[in-house]
Amino acid sequence: MIRIGMGQIEITPGNPRKNRDIILQAIEYAKALRLDLLILPELALSGYLIGDVWDQPAFVNECVAMGETIIKSTDNIAVIFGNVGLDPDKTNFDGRPRKFNAIFAAQNGELITPQESPYPFIIKTLNPNYRFFNEARYFTPLPTVAQELHRPVEELLGLLPFTFKNGEMFNVAPLLCEDSWDENYSFSPTTTLADKSTIQDVPIDAFINISASPFTLGKNERRHRLFSERAKELETPVFYINSVGLQNNGKSICTFDGQSTVYNQAGQVVAQLPAYEATVQPVLMAKTSEATTVENADSPITENSRNVTTEARYEVVDLYDNQTVIKTPVKSEAPLEVAQIYRALHYGLKSFLKQTGIKKIVIGVSGGIDSALNAALYATVLDPSQIYLVNMPTRFNSTATKDLAAQLAKNLGCQYAVCPVEDSLTLTVNQFESLTFEGPNGSEQVKVSSFVKENIQARDRSARILAGLAASVGGAFTCNGNKTEFTIGYATLYGDLAGFLAASGDLWKYQVYDLANYLNREIFKREVIPQGTIDIIPSAELSENQDITKGQGDPLQYEYHDRLFKSFIEPWNRMTPEDLLLAYKENRLEAILNLPKPISHYFDSASDFIADLERWWNSFAGLAVAKRIQSPPIIVVSRRAYGGDLLESQMAPYYTEKYFELKEELLQLQ
Amino acid sequence: MIRIGMGQIEITPGNPRKNRDIILQAIEYAKALRLDLLILPELALSGYLIGDVWDQPAFVNECVAMGETIIKSTDNIAVIFGNVGLDPDKTNFDGRPRKFNAIFAAQNGELITPQESPYPFIIKTLNPNYRFFNEARYFTPLPTVAQELHRPVEELLGLLPFTFKNGEMFNVAPLLCEDSWDENYSFSPTTTLADKSTIQDVPIDAFINISASPFTLGKNERRHRLFSERAKELETPVFYINSVGLQNNGKSICTFDGQSTVYNQAGQVVAQLPAYEATVQPVLMAKTSEATTVENADSPITENSRNVTTEARYEVVDLYDNQTVIKTPVKSEAPLEVAQIYRALHYGLKSFLKQTGIKKIVIGVSGGIDSALNAALYATVLDPSQIYLVNMPTRFNSTATKDLAAQLAKNLGCQYAVCPVEDSLTLTVNQFESLTFEGPNGSEQVKVSSFVKENIQARDRSARILAGLAASVGGAFTCNGNKTEFTIGYATLYGDLAGFLAASGDLWKYQVYDLANYLNREIFKREVIPQGTIDIIPSAELSENQDITKGQGDPLQYEYHDRLFKSFIEPWNRMTPEDLLLAYKENRLEAILNLPKPISHYFDSASDFIADLERWWNSFAGLAVAKRIQSPPIIVVSRRAYGGDLLESQMAPYYTEKYFELKEELLQLQ
Repeated sequence: MIRIGMGQIEITPGNPRKNRDIILQAIEYAKALRLDLLILPELALSGYLIGDVWDQPAFVNECVAMGETIIKSTDNIAVIFGNVGLDPDKTNFDGRPRKFNAIFAAQNGELITPQESPYPFIIKTLNPNYRFFNEARYFTPLPTVAQELHRPVEELLGLLPFTFKNGEMFNVAPLLCEDSWDENYSFSPTTTLADKSTIQDVPIDAFINISASPFTLGKNERRHRLFSERAKELETPVFYINSVGLQNNGKSICTFDGQSTVYNQAGQVVAQLPAYEATVQPVLMAKTSEATTVENADSPITENSRNVTTEARYEVVDLYDNQTVIKTPVKSEAPLEVAQIYRALHYGLKSFLKQTGIKKIVIGVSGGIDSALNAALYATVLDPSQIYLVNMPTRFNSTATKDLAAQLAKNLGCQYAVCPVEDSLTLTVNQFESLTFEGPNGSEQVKVSSFVKENIQARDRSARILAGLAASVGGAFTCNGNKTEFTIGYATLYGDLAGFLAASGDLWKYQVYDLANYLNREIFKREVIPQGTIDIIPSAELSENQDITKGQGDPLQYEYHDRLFKSFIEPWNRMTPEDLLLAYKENRLEAILNLPKPISHYFDSASDFIADLERWWNSFAGLAVAKRIQSPPIIVVSRRAYGGDLLESQMAPYYTEKYFELKEELLQLQ
Repeated sequence: MIRIGMGQIEITPGNPRKNRDIILQAIEYAKALRLDLLILPELALSGYLIGDVWDQPAFVNECVAMGETIIKSTDNIAVIFGNVGLDPDKTNFDGRPRKFNAIFAAQNGELITPQESPYPFIIKTLNPNYRFFNEARYFTPLPTVAQELHRPVEELLGLLPFTFKNGEMFNVAPLLCEDSWDENYSFSPTTTLADKSTIQDVPIDAFINISASPFTLGKNERRHRLFSERAKELETPVFYINSVGLQNNGKSICTFDGQSTVYNQAGQVVAQLPAYEATVQPVLMAKTSEATTVENADSPITENSRNVTTEARYEVVDLYDNQTVIKTPVKSEAPLEVAQIYRALHYGLKSFLKQTGIKKIVIGVSGGIDSALNAALYATVLDPSQIYLVNMPTRFNSTATKDLAAQLAKNLGCQYAVCPVEDSLTLTVNQFESLTFEGPNGSEQVKVSSFVKENIQARDRSARILAGLAASVGGAFTCNGNKTEFTIGYATLYGDLAGFLAASGDLWKYQVYDLANYLNREIFKREVIPQGTIDIIPSAELSENQDITKGQGDPLQYEYHDRLFKSFIEPWNRMTPEDLLLAYKENRLEAILNLPKPISHYFDSASDFIADLERWWNSFAGLAVAKRIQSPPIIVVSRRAYGGDLLESQMAPYYTEKYFELKEELLQLQ
């Protein structure tokens, strides 16, 4: 019987001392439970998203020293944890001390290492370099070490041979995060370890993957599919241990959701830890009397099968009824998308406020959906008395929206004030229009256009009132923008684009509505976001031309544009006007964008469609980039969020030659 | 006689069409000069810093198609150029189409490839992943290809065998940028190619390195050292071809300085193209009657020497006197640091305005040095009538600084206006102090502290006046911040930290002064920045406590703090309080920070030194990070600029265990 602890701990990025203390606590707890082996996540001392702090040798040495403390504390227990491995005699290719993203295994104060490993730790083989993953910037991966040694990578991988109480042998195939996501790599650590096991005739008792994996919609489902398949194929249990906590790369705030999972040798999920909860969960493994291959009747035994032995193998049994092999899989279906989004944003907000020490929040509320959603979200993590809602009307704001803002405050029980910006707008316009620039070539009067006045209002609200009030009450103010607006820069820099955090910045407008309804229905279980706010036409109300009483709202058909804009950034191979125009021509656009209605519903003609496409592509790839460079951090929920997840350069919007050919063809057809 | 063109072209990032046109023009020009070989820079179709546009297959295909046009246009000439290489049958490890940063060589419409290369192009071997270089994110490097083929990298590298008019053979050793900066890599493409040449008995006629290398202070000097050494050691000329232009990764605006260089076989610089100038420079190579080894008398001929042949080899001769071997090296010393900074900022500003289409600039001028420097810099790229200087005083601003602001405008001949912020400040404070938040638990009055009033002023100036005036005149407004302020967040978000660009954001305060003096002395050759502005004590003048008439300035001793802050970010291995405290204890601090005076000049005691160190480290690693996330782009001049050059996460400031030990020790000694 092997008693294994799944150490789903909370990791504080950039704070090895705090992480060491958490780990030591987890080890004490594991010892109290008389566990044989405690498994902890990847880079458990440093944290994962810590940026270029890796350039500080003092920090790296601190992580190494803290790791040594962990190793020393392993009397009567074995511990697997992630930490930076250091080779002080070599450098990375950037000339800095050579660092590895590594697994350390220790027992009774001694390191345990696969005999194949060139270091007393295990080096990560597959280093991801996409989204917010930048491992090539910091770490030397195993294939590089192999290449330097003029040896195949395969030769450097091996099993971790543990011996537990009563001399029980337990062989672990160690993997670090991406090592298991091997679909696109030319080398699979899992396959290599399985092959070695066969060749050496040493059965693998468990694959153990330690990770630092941020939440992304759909990722858990993909992981279940991938990890289950491998467990089943190799007839070996897989342990996946992920951390919880909040980490960021500046612009992208990532929630680490834990959800550590055990897959049994039939590929079933037999244990899944709760999302976003720091916990150490014991799982027992025992040798059953039957051979494992019997368990998995689907897998025919062939001469080439890896399970030629008929010896009993370890299986996962639970803690409380430890004689019974867990045969019934745990329900591992993901909650609804909107529920996952809520969970991530709630946790992200709570953690970010805790990390930054912000206790009071000022939110500009217009009566519209975005600010209402943000107010309601913050009300799930702060006492409403610490939330200051401010309505800042001008004559362009309708009574309807002003009343809805007041209603929202009342529903939530927040502090509420009305702070008009009309006087300040008048002062500014008067001050500008009485201003004369003098120069060698004479004088020049300033004129203020209607469009400029709109932006003056937006900046007045955020940079004057909200920022000033936040400073006065000793708190921070929010950016209520959504992903649809961020995509095209439909927001004013230093105006509604300002704020300490854009909690809803990774939500398309339809997700804003979904989440608003979800909050009313499932979280507050009453109408906190007024139905009127949900029903009203979205509008900036910055001029006479945005009068909601006349049905004049945003220049977007959200049903269509949400999906169009999504195609600019979320597909793994991102779309451009060329791809969209080709799909339009071939009548594939509805399918590709997943439109609920035919494209002719949104546009009368090809030229209308093209004009709209170019208008927004020009914004997306043009001025909106400049705005995003100065926009607040965003809590990530999607497969691709603005910020450090999507690297952008300020450039001119580009259209390919094929785009122009297609355009000409389509316009001639009309 | 071989006629080679150094194609130092301007590259527009993200615009393959424009780059193709520029390249076709360069080829036409080269043909008109009857050149045999035209050499163009790395990634000449796409540009280098284009962010995640590489995720768009349509863009990648466009670059490939444009490359094919280049190849077809090589009748009667050979061309070497950089472009993305594509293997449509494979993926990168991220699952996207497999892309290579590659060299293409073509002649008479046909590709020329080393026989060893697995593709009809040459794959970059060393892919940098530091600063703004992210190649692992986009490209598969040659060592990975080798590993997949289970072959040593060496086997995949080879020479480009050209045959020119009259059947002249000319063997080129092709290198891509980082390939030549091999000091920290475990593999040297240069050495491999040289060894192959010896083994195969095929002499290398020239190493050709095509680059996309942004300007950084000191980099050119390091390149001369490195490339000269290799040329001399291998007794072979080295051609270095770099592009010019402006590219950015969002926050970091990089100037590509060209300065393409030819090193002869003695390691001397025999041709260096001007910085920041797009040009095609012909260089002639001819076989001399003497063996090359004679040229380089320092290099003893041994049995192992690579130049065992006594045949004549190609040497660099110039275009106009093509019988004479260039023996006199070109003067290649770098200009003064301040002159290099000026050149980069001038070019960067000019190009950035051109790229963004901004023709008018609004600058808030306080009478202080930072705004004066920015005004003068813009006056080197714009007609002064297009520069609007605005002085925005409150009662805290001295007559001295107000007069200096007016004098600056007069000296430069800019548009000038005074736009006080007193009325607006009063309006805001009154509006806030008469505001009552109502909530379920009663009402709450807003109070505005003196510190909050300072920040209200700062935001009023930028987000209300400058942003509003910029929109009114149809231009943009500037951020005048410097690197010292950026380091500790000594600036107000949406206030003086706002602006479309921080031209001086990578300059320490001492460099701001150096550049101001340089502009007066060398560029304008008269006092445009008033001497009073240079002499006055730096101060924010935001409250009664910052009264320059009482000598109350910024809370910094710039002479010391510039150097302290530099140690936080610019050394390759960055310093932390631990390193600094250890140096203090061991009396090495003056040497490490290059202080002009002993540390006791700045601090009376260890506890004073420590309190100051912790104050600023807390700012640097704390709130200042949050500010930098939303700050404007910066033109890069240093080895490490804020923005995409230094990746930062918002985290709590950290002090190592060793720091606390040292601190305790030092405080007990007192």
